[in-house]
Amino acid sequence: MSTNIDIQESSKDTKGKAVLVTAPARPGGWKKGIAIMDFILRLGAVASALGAAATMGMSDQTLPFFTQFFQFEASYDSFTAFQFFVITMAIVAGYLVLSLPFSIVAIIRPHATGPRLFLVILDTVFLTLATASAASAAAIVYLAHNGNQDTNWLAICNQFGDFCAQTSGAVVSSFITVVVLVLLIVMSALAIGKH
Amino acid sequence: MSTNIDIQESSKDTKGKAVLVTAPARPGGWKKGIAIMDFILRLGAVASALGAAATMGMSDQTLPFFTQFFQFEASYDSFTAFQFFVITMAIVAGYLVLSLPFSIVAIIRPHATGPRLFLVILDTVFLTLATASAASAAAIVYLAHNGNQDTNWLAICNQFGDFCAQTSGAVVSSFITVVVLVLLIVMSALAIGKH
Repeated sequence: MSTNIDIQESSKDTKGKAVLVTAPARPGGWKKGIAIMDFILRLGAVASALGAAATMGMSDQTLPFFTQFFQFEASYDSFTAFQFFVITMAIVAGYLVLSLPFSIVAIIRPHATGPRLFLVILDTVFLTLATASAASAAAIVYLAHNGNQDTNWLAICNQFGDFCAQTSGAVVSSFITVVVLVLLIVMSALAIGKH
Repeated sequence: MSTNIDIQESSKDTKGKAVLVTAPARPGGWKKGIAIMDFILRLGAVASALGAAATMGMSDQTLPFFTQFFQFEASYDSFTAFQFFVITMAIVAGYLVLSLPFSIVAIIRPHATGPRLFLVILDTVFLTLATASAASAAAIVYLAHNGNQDTNWLAICNQFGDFCAQTSGAVVSSFITVVVLVLLIVMSALAIGKH
């Protein structure tokens, strides 16, 4: 929308003023559009990262039967990969919230490469963190669903159905964060590269 | 080294010629250095990715005792995460080999942003792939070493010691690939951003 408005204004301006003044307006509008898209996607990534951390952190199921010595309970504490997942997704969500001001600076000054470069480098680091936690949790969720015959690790999802559903949802939500972060990096790289 | 030589030449030139001629030489040398570093790091990443895929693909251990119905054997086929690891690291190694010509183009033309932009975008995608496979394999290796009490998954590394050593080595090698890819993206982003 903003690009269209810019073009209309420039076509009006050319009747009275010089063309040189309106020429730099078009690439700015294109970069401004990317910066606004960056901000919106970043908000979505905050939501999915927080949702992933919260869903995993609250996953807890206690079975209604127990023996004299043992009560059957599964929570995210049971797996080191899930603990890593909760901590990492919370850190990624925190970073994404702190990166919002830099995204706003990119909207206000579409031609400045400084904030975009800063965001690309940090986005890459936190993309690696988010992908690592999502993939390791996915490996455990897969084992919980299917088990492993060769090592005699039995599937636990028959007993802990709710726990498996919650952790699977958290993993899906974290992979959405990963996809959004990849999009953010590609968009920022394009905005920096094209002059 | 090359930067120092440039400075000496320019200080000599300023006595006789205009300063404007030597001014664009400095950023070119800086960007060329980054491009050469990119090429060398990319070769290292090819080696570590191939090493990871080969070590994991050849991990296989058969125990010297067996029952009437069952022989105890562990290979990368036993775990879905390890199969994914072998396939993904082979794909990443293939991409890194194919990306070498673009890195050479960046050395020959240090100021062209096109090849660097192309490399940054594809590097980001393959970084995600490499990180996902490395992290999911790491989660399984951790389980194989420590087991999980809550789900009664026993550690298998007491029996399959060689298998565990090989897979752990492959995971370490794949994380080296991940670190190198992050460095490549950061370096390319800096080279594109600074004019």
